[in-house]
Parts: sequence; C-alpha cells; structure tokens
Amino acid sequence: MDCIQALARISEMDGCITRTYGTAAWRQGALTIMSWMQVAGLTVGMDNIGNVRGRLSCGLTGAKTFVIASHMDTVINAGKFDGPLGVVMGLDLLKTLVRNRTALPFDIELVAFCDEEGCRFHTTYLGSKVLAGTFEPALLAHTDAAGVTIQDVIHANGSHTAGLPDDAIPAQDWLGYFEIHIEQGPVLYEKDIPVAVVQAIAGQKRIAVTFRGMAGHAGTVPMDMRQDALCCAAEFVQAVERTALLHKDKIVATVGKLQVENAASNVIPGLVTCTLDLRSPDESMLAATYEALQQTAAAICKQRNILFEWMLVQETAPVLCDTGLNALLTAAIADAGYKPLALVSGAGHDAVAIAAVAPVSMLFVRCFKGISHHPLEDVALKDLIAAVEVADNFIQHVIHQYDQVWKYQH
Amino acid sequence: MDCIQALARISEMDGCITRTYGTAAWRQGALTIMSWMQVAGLTVGMDNIGNVRGRLSCGLTGAKTFVIASHMDTVINAGKFDGPLGVVMGLDLLKTLVRNRTALPFDIELVAFCDEEGCRFHTTYLGSKVLAGTFEPALLAHTDAAGVTIQDVIHANGSHTAGLPDDAIPAQDWLGYFEIHIEQGPVLYEKDIPVAVVQAIAGQKRIAVTFRGMAGHAGTVPMDMRQDALCCAAEFVQAVERTALLHKDKIVATVGKLQVENAASNVIPGLVTCTLDLRSPDESMLAATYEALQQTAAAICKQRNILFEWMLVQETAPVLCDTGLNALLTAAIADAGYKPLALVSGAGHDAVAIAAVAPVSMLFVRCFKGISHHPLEDVALKDLIAAVEVADNFIQHVIHQYDQVWKYQH
Repeated sequence: MDCIQALARISEMDGCITRTYGTAAWRQGALTIMSWMQVAGLTVGMDNIGNVRGRLSCGLTGAKTFVIASHMDTVINAGKFDGPLGVVMGLDLLKTLVRNRTALPFDIELVAFCDEEGCRFHTTYLGSKVLAGTFEPALLAHTDAAGVTIQDVIHANGSHTAGLPDDAIPAQDWLGYFEIHIEQGPVLYEKDIPVAVVQAIAGQKRIAVTFRGMAGHAGTVPMDMRQDALCCAAEFVQAVERTALLHKDKIVATVGKLQVENAASNVIPGLVTCTLDLRSPDESMLAATYEALQQTAAAICKQRNILFEWMLVQETAPVLCDTGLNALLTAAIADAGYKPLALVSGAGHDAVAIAAVAPVSMLFVRCFKGISHHPLEDVALKDLIAAVEVADNFIQHVIHQYDQVWKYQH
Repeated sequence: MDCIQALARISEMDGCITRTYGTAAWRQGALTIMSWMQVAGLTVGMDNIGNVRGRLSCGLTGAKTFVIASHMDTVINAGKFDGPLGVVMGLDLLKTLVRNRTALPFDIELVAFCDEEGCRFHTTYLGSKVLAGTFEPALLAHTDAAGVTIQDVIHANGSHTAGLPDDAIPAQDWLGYFEIHIEQGPVLYEKDIPVAVVQAIAGQKRIAVTFRGMAGHAGTVPMDMRQDALCCAAEFVQAVERTALLHKDKIVATVGKLQVENAASNVIPGLVTCTLDLRSPDESMLAATYEALQQTAAAICKQRNILFEWMLVQETAPVLCDTGLNALLTAAIADAGYKPLALVSGAGHDAVAIAAVAPVSMLFVRCFKGISHHPLEDVALKDLIAAVEVADNFIQHVIHQYDQVWKYQH
C-alpha cells in the first residue's frame, strides 16, 4: 500500500493523479518502479517503447518466460489502483520468491507497461504490443494534442525506434501471462468477495447511430403528424436495454451519448445522434446482438418514417483467458479459502495484446463500489492481502504444473 | 402579395428577414405600414409602445371599436408571412369597406402590433397588452442583450412611457377582435383546405425534468446492476408520447431538449436533463395530463432507483375564442364555398392578451408544409385570395349581426 501511495504522489497535474505516457511525471513513475525492482534483486531495464522490465532468471539455458504485468500510466484525474496495483502486487510476488529462494524452472519477467490507457495518443496497448511483437510502426507517427509524436517520446526518453522489434519476447519463449487488476465493476463489491478469475475479456463494437426526422413547432404539429427523432431514439434506447437484459450474463449494451441537434424546448426534435457500445465475451452473441439491434432500429425507424444511419465505428474480438492457467488460479483462490468466482472483463487490458502470442490469465480484485477512473477508486487493505495470498499460491501452482506436466509438452 | 414582399425586404440583417422590436428596420417597417394606411384613408398614428394604428371611424358618438390586427415584428431569420399577413389582409379588408362606402355601425381599428415574438426582450405581447390596458410598467426595465431597456426603445422612438395607459382601448369600448395568421402547423396543408376557424389558443406548461442515476463503466457494470439515467429518460419520453397520442385531438406533448451530462460512449449515463412542453385548449386536460405524467415519471424513477426532479418553469391558461364571432366566421367560410374547419392554435398570439378585455376570433391560413419561423415559410396566392374573401364576408356578417342583435344588447 505504501508503494501505491508513493506512485499516487507522482503526477503531471496538481491536485490529482495523472501520469500519461511520456510525460515527466510518467518518467518519474517509471524510474521509481525500476528502483524498487532493483532493490528486489531483479535484472532491470527500460525497453525502447518505455516498458519497465525486471527479470528473475532461473539460470537454465533455453528457459521459457512467464510474464507478470500491469501498466504504470493512468487516465487524467485517475484513481491510485488502476494499473499500479498489478505492478506492485507482481513485485511483492517476486520478492517472496527471492526471499524464499524458490527454485524456478522458467524465467519470470515483471513488466510495468508504459501505456495501456492511451489517453495521450488515443492508442491502445502500446507497451504490450511491443512485448508481444505486434507493434505496428505506423503508430510511431501518432500525435498528441500538441503535435508531439510517439517517435518523439521515444527519442526524448533516450531510446530508439529501431530497437522496438528486439524488445519483443519471441513467440516461442512465452510460457504464459498473469495480470492482477482491479475489477472496475461492482460485482465483487456487491457479492462481498475479494477476488475473481477473469474468464474472458469482452469483445466490443461501437456504433454511431443517427435518427433523421422532421423538426416542427411543439405547439402546432399534432401528435399523429410528427416525425420526432427523439421519440424514435427513445424507443431504440429502450430496445437496446431490453435486448441486453434478455442475455444479461453474456452481454452489456450502453447508449452513452445522445444529442438532439438544434434542440429547443418548443421544437420537435428533427435530428438525434447517439452512440451504442456493445460488449460480450461471446463472439457469436456479440455478432447476433449487433445484427438484431440494427434490424430493430431499422424497423422502429421505418414504422416512424425516420431516416436512419448506422455506422460501425470500432470493433475488437473477445479474448478468452487460458483454461489451463485459469484452473490453477481457481485452485489458488480455493487454497486461500475464498469462493472461486469467474467474471468477464468488460474493460480492455494489456492481456488482449499478449493473447496474440501467449496464454493469458488475470485476477480481479474488488474495488469500492466498482468505481474506477476516478479519485474515489479504492481497494481495501484486506483485499490486497487476499490477492497477494492468491498470487503466491498461483505461482506455486504454475511452477508445480510446469515441473509435472508442461515441461514435457513444450 | 406585393405588400408582403415589400415588408420582407426590410431587415436589420443582410440575407434574411429580421425585424425585432425597436430596431431601425422595425421602425422602417412601421413607417411603411403607416404610409399604406394613410393611402387607404385611415386616421393613422403610432402609439407610445410602437403599435401602428389606423382607424376607420363610423362617425357615431359612443361607437364601439372592432379591432383587426396582427404583428409587424419578426423572429430572427424569419419567413415573410408570420405577422405581416394579418396586417396586410386587414388593410385589404378596410380598403374594400372604404371603396364600397360601407356604412359602419362601429369604428374599425387596424393595428400592426409592435412586438409579438418577443425576440429582443424575451417578453410576450408588448403591443397587445398596451391595447388591452394590461401592460405592467415593470416590463419597461427589461433589457436586451446589449443592456438597452424597453423604456429606452420607447424614448428613442420619440414616445413617452407616461402615455401608455391612455393608449389602451377602454374595456367598455371593445366590440371584438379579429386576427388573420398563418397556421404554423401542417393540418390545413395535409387536409388541403385553405383556411380554418381558430377554436382556442392552447394553454401551455413547460417543465424541466432531471433524472439522477449513477454513472458507470459501460463494460463492467452488468445490465441488472445499473442506474442508467438515459434508459430512464427514454422510458419517460415514450410515456409522454403514448399519453399524448391517447388524447391527440386535445393535447400535444413534446420533449424538445434532452442532455446527457458528461456523456461518453463508454460511460453509463448518470445524469440526464430534459424539457417537457405540454399544450392543450382544455384546461382540465392540461392539468390532468401534467399530473399523470409527473406520476408516471415518479413511478418509472422509483422502479429504476433513479432520483427525479420536476420543476414547472412556465404556464399559461388556454384562451377560448368567442363562440359568437366564430359562428359568423364559420358562416363566412361556408359562404366562400370552403369546408369549415375548427383548429386549436398550439402557438400563442396577440389574441391571448386581447382576450382579457374583448371577445376574440382568428382565421388561420394554410402555409406550405406547416413551416414557419423559417425562410421557407410560404403561403400560396390562391390561399391569400380565399382568406380575403372569407374576411370580407366575415366583416359583413359582423356588421349585420351588430345591426340586428348586438346593438340592442350592448
């Protein structure tokens, strides 16, 4: 908790926690984490994108690498735990291994990813993409609000873009990936459970919807002669909620933005735009719901004589966590005396990028009322203790499983 | 039509029609109308608030006054017909009476009201309130965006606030009031009818509604753990529409503005504000619908665990047009060979202010697609001709009725 408080004091803004990629505060945070890793006895370095990496080597030739990671950047006006929690917990786990002189059959690398939130450059997973070897060089030209590029950040950091490919852990060297993160949702808080296994990270589709009716005088156009774009949008919002509730264990659907153009209290809305955010761990459910809602919107609009535009803005596929690692994580939770619970992550994580090359697993830790990306973000000390215990059990299970089974398979 | 075009060329803004109260363009419009009235043989003047008034006297001592009027001010970027139509049609009507040397048993006063739209000072019915004797002196201190007061306008116009009370037509002198105006709605256009009798001017209630739920991450909060303020507002918008459709001949209800606070596509809406505009010619229907929708909103919010605020922002009572005058207007329409139709005015008019002291009547004229307060506002020449014919018939009916019945009652 002291480490989390120490990182929370490092910010590019007064009065709140903000450490976006490449800023002086971000660099100070990175150097702080490096110093902790050094004290813990790891082999420490910063790679060219800006990930802080500390390796605990098993000393065996041709050893695989098991990565424990989370991110060190934050959103603007962030909480203390989103990101740093996983880095600090990973550090604690490695310290315990060092302290206990645990014999490792593989290397463990602790990584503090440089940029998961993507707030400065509107990107995703810069650090984990480099580690996975999937970083696209086109990203280097992305600019922040001031026109600074990602390449500029790398150079200012004393690093070289030419070295990025070599910063990847080669696909054949990966053993697995483990990340501890706050849930960022209310389920553990409501169920009064400290931790959960992440079953999958939801895929997502973002859609921009436009309803084009006919503006008119609120006093003079009779109810049955209107083409009210807001009434139409309201019917759609209701249909979105109803549809998602039907499959509430498998999907969430949200209309987050809704705008009436040229709105006035005495004018019938002529044009309404809104967003639709769909997320599901089940790719076929995601696709089916997408199709169903598009058809529902079209039917509502047809019936109301409203023109309708539907634009898919962004999509990501669901990522399933590894069933083998999850079985060990479930056992680790049971060992610690907690009820095992599997959750879907509706938010994205670096594990999404890593899943391209390695089996991934994640442990969610309860946060206060599910609040995140907000100064009120909080994790109880007893839940940190629970997560440490589960993580320690988990790494022992991984070592045991490797010795007993995996080393003969790989 | 030439007169309407001539007024449309007088504007305080290039490229669009705008004549708000007290501006140079407004004054030029007033002087133009005065010159037309003089040519028509009326006794012409401008009163202290700025109404242009032309009197055709019957020459009888103690004669009553029948007022024919509409307004000469416009909204910003207005159409040609809203206001000027009624002034110009009244002028035509009086010219016909003069040309035919019609013997009048009462005086007729043609009034071009100075400010009906209230765009500059955010007021209503300045001119007709003075004529009715209901002008509140507190209005004189109202300021426009530049800090100019209504009193300043009166002085700049060479007039005196002290004279305002004497500009009123004394209550006992009123015989009645007649206004020709475009419908500003689509009913005549859709029904393919040129004119209609106005049965009543709807009363109105404006309400500000707030829905306070809980913001949350669109990916991490399950559907059944949300307090989504927008889903709640959408259910309310649907209920408003459904309720008004049940009584569609008697009420219109509109949610014109709806705002999601701190909206983002990946955030569950925590706070939504919207407006509700209710209008009905039936005071009890208006009150009952107001109550019903407030209860419906409360029930929706309770069921969804959303905090709910409801604030009545403004209200006006319905005004009934005079049944005696309307019977004569209906006869005048039938005489001209058109199907009599009675409509409710959902928009306010100067007749609302005059109804405090005199029986009022209005004739609606079809406008293109119901469009008004917009450069596309249009009236077909054949509909102007129909309205002139109906108005000529109507005034003959009024004269006849006065001679046969009313003069013995008054």
